[in-house]
Amino acid sequence: MRFESPEAFAAALAALPEPDAAAREAAAARQGQLTKPAGSLGRLEEIALFMAGWRGQERPALDKGRAVIFAGNHGVTRHGVSAFPSDVTVQMVANFEAGGAAINQLARHAGLELQVVALELDRPTADFTEGPAMSADECLDALNRGAATVTPDLDLLVVGEMGIGNSTAAAALCARSLGGAVQDWVGPGTGLDAAGVANKVAVVERALATHAGAPHDAFETLRRLGGREIVAIAGAVLAARRARVPVMLDGFIACAALAPLAAQQPAIIDHCLAGHCSAEPGHRRLLRQFNLEPLLQLGMRLGEGSGAAVAVSIVRAALAAHNGMATFAEASVSGKL
Amino acid sequence: MRFESPEAFAAALAALPEPDAAAREAAAARQGQLTKPAGSLGRLEEIALFMAGWRGQERPALDKGRAVIFAGNHGVTRHGVSAFPSDVTVQMVANFEAGGAAINQLARHAGLELQVVALELDRPTADFTEGPAMSADECLDALNRGAATVTPDLDLLVVGEMGIGNSTAAAALCARSLGGAVQDWVGPGTGLDAAGVANKVAVVERALATHAGAPHDAFETLRRLGGREIVAIAGAVLAARRARVPVMLDGFIACAALAPLAAQQPAIIDHCLAGHCSAEPGHRRLLRQFNLEPLLQLGMRLGEGSGAAVAVSIVRAALAAHNGMATFAEASVSGKL
Repeated sequence: MRFESPEAFAAALAALPEPDAAAREAAAARQGQLTKPAGSLGRLEEIALFMAGWRGQERPALDKGRAVIFAGNHGVTRHGVSAFPSDVTVQMVANFEAGGAAINQLARHAGLELQVVALELDRPTADFTEGPAMSADECLDALNRGAATVTPDLDLLVVGEMGIGNSTAAAALCARSLGGAVQDWVGPGTGLDAAGVANKVAVVERALATHAGAPHDAFETLRRLGGREIVAIAGAVLAARRARVPVMLDGFIACAALAPLAAQQPAIIDHCLAGHCSAEPGHRRLLRQFNLEPLLQLGMRLGEGSGAAVAVSIVRAALAAHNGMATFAEASVSGKL
Repeated sequence: MRFESPEAFAAALAALPEPDAAAREAAAARQGQLTKPAGSLGRLEEIALFMAGWRGQERPALDKGRAVIFAGNHGVTRHGVSAFPSDVTVQMVANFEAGGAAINQLARHAGLELQVVALELDRPTADFTEGPAMSADECLDALNRGAATVTPDLDLLVVGEMGIGNSTAAAALCARSLGGAVQDWVGPGTGLDAAGVANKVAVVERALATHAGAPHDAFETLRRLGGREIVAIAGAVLAARRARVPVMLDGFIACAALAPLAAQQPAIIDHCLAGHCSAEPGHRRLLRQFNLEPLLQLGMRLGEGSGAAVAVSIVRAALAAHNGMATFAEASVSGKL
């Protein structure tokens, strides 16, 4: 799908499809007959029902899963908000393409296709402490680059990102969309010290002041404070919802892409799983606001879709049990006394 | 290996091998060169080092992993401590052998061989509220049945269990080995109500009183309050340690098998990972006493090695990243500013 205008994006966000209730109910009935005490597979059971509803199948498959890593560069890096130079974004994209990064190994392990979408790395977004990060056309283009990665044959979409400086944009998006103190949304990212974090807080506060009088709708917030990779994630997640493709979210930045959307339409989260709660302190707060319980908490803080890719194995385990187990009747096992 | 006597078991427990420090250091040096901020893969990095140390390889493989499910029956079920009849143990073993249980699907998903060891299901242990569950020879035999499942070519051993009534034995083992109030170790198991849990507490208290004057060493506690499947897990974990094979622990019962060993020799836990913290309330307490942080918390409470099998995917992800990623030099990526 394509978003032709900010209004078309807003209209798509306002009219979200629901999961297939009949498929979900059929899956729940099946769960009740499998050879285990009721509920004893815990969240694996919930995941099976989630996948059944969104894919419209009593026994959903995960044949085609895709991890998409969006990369972008950020004008705000001029304020020293990252421990790494901006050159690293393009260097890491080359590493993704050569197969040497963490996500290459983790996507292969999880049985996912990997797609890398580099968004005009030689043209960073504007410094959002002084004005909007993007024009409306640039923002629409990024949304559509994201949406274009979604095909209706996908059983699961994993969204990840790479962009030196993007945890600053993520913090600004969360603070503007969801409120709260700026310092609650700002963390060390890939490795700032305390002075670096304090500087990052000041940068985000300046950005919020600059845009305080602007409209608060999702498109305007993304355009003003996002980066191209972040906006592309928002476009991909909304396009996935339109195609009833479930999404596995990654870390703080990938989740922050949804903050402006969720502030306008909380149901946008319903087709999403949280793969991992990262060490970045704003992430837990954000997941709580989304009412999402992360599948993993392994202290990861890399981005790239890495935490989400690890969590895909849990979805595969859930579906293996749901689809493959015998029922009490098939196995001649006695039920509860 | 075989334990020829209770004394030989105690001697093996007293002389545990350590991991290979040089291999672990080489793996740590490699981690520091991979294309990611230092530490940003969190526990995946720790797991890679853990595997490197125990397998003695800078880049450890997980070629051969085995899940072993031990099954046993318990005389204590005469006191109504389970929501399911004892017949279910043999029925579920048949289900394991036919491939219909959760663990069949989860072991296949995780790339594990599955071995089922049914321990004299037609001869339940004695009712341990009245006397020892096993004779010394029966206990040695169960230890050796466990130890026999370990081969030195294994890269990882997953231990699980099936045995109607065995969460009562597990609670008794924990309370006798580690102290604390009996009600803190007793939970609903596969589905008791509050009255059922209260009865289970009373049963465990009677058992502790019956054996209060007996020696408190690991062998005697296992023999008096264990079940054959639980004792076999203790034997398998100790044999794995002797072969430097790391172990993925499953739920409350599999972990409780180690409580008598850990009370005597805390280092027995060092080659073990906790796959999953189950919904059974004593499990969290037990893992805390072992100083183990579970990899997963998915509300599972099935046993069978199911939580551990799901967690094996995290070990595979950790090794995929550790073994496959490019270094900064290989990928020409800039380091920190």
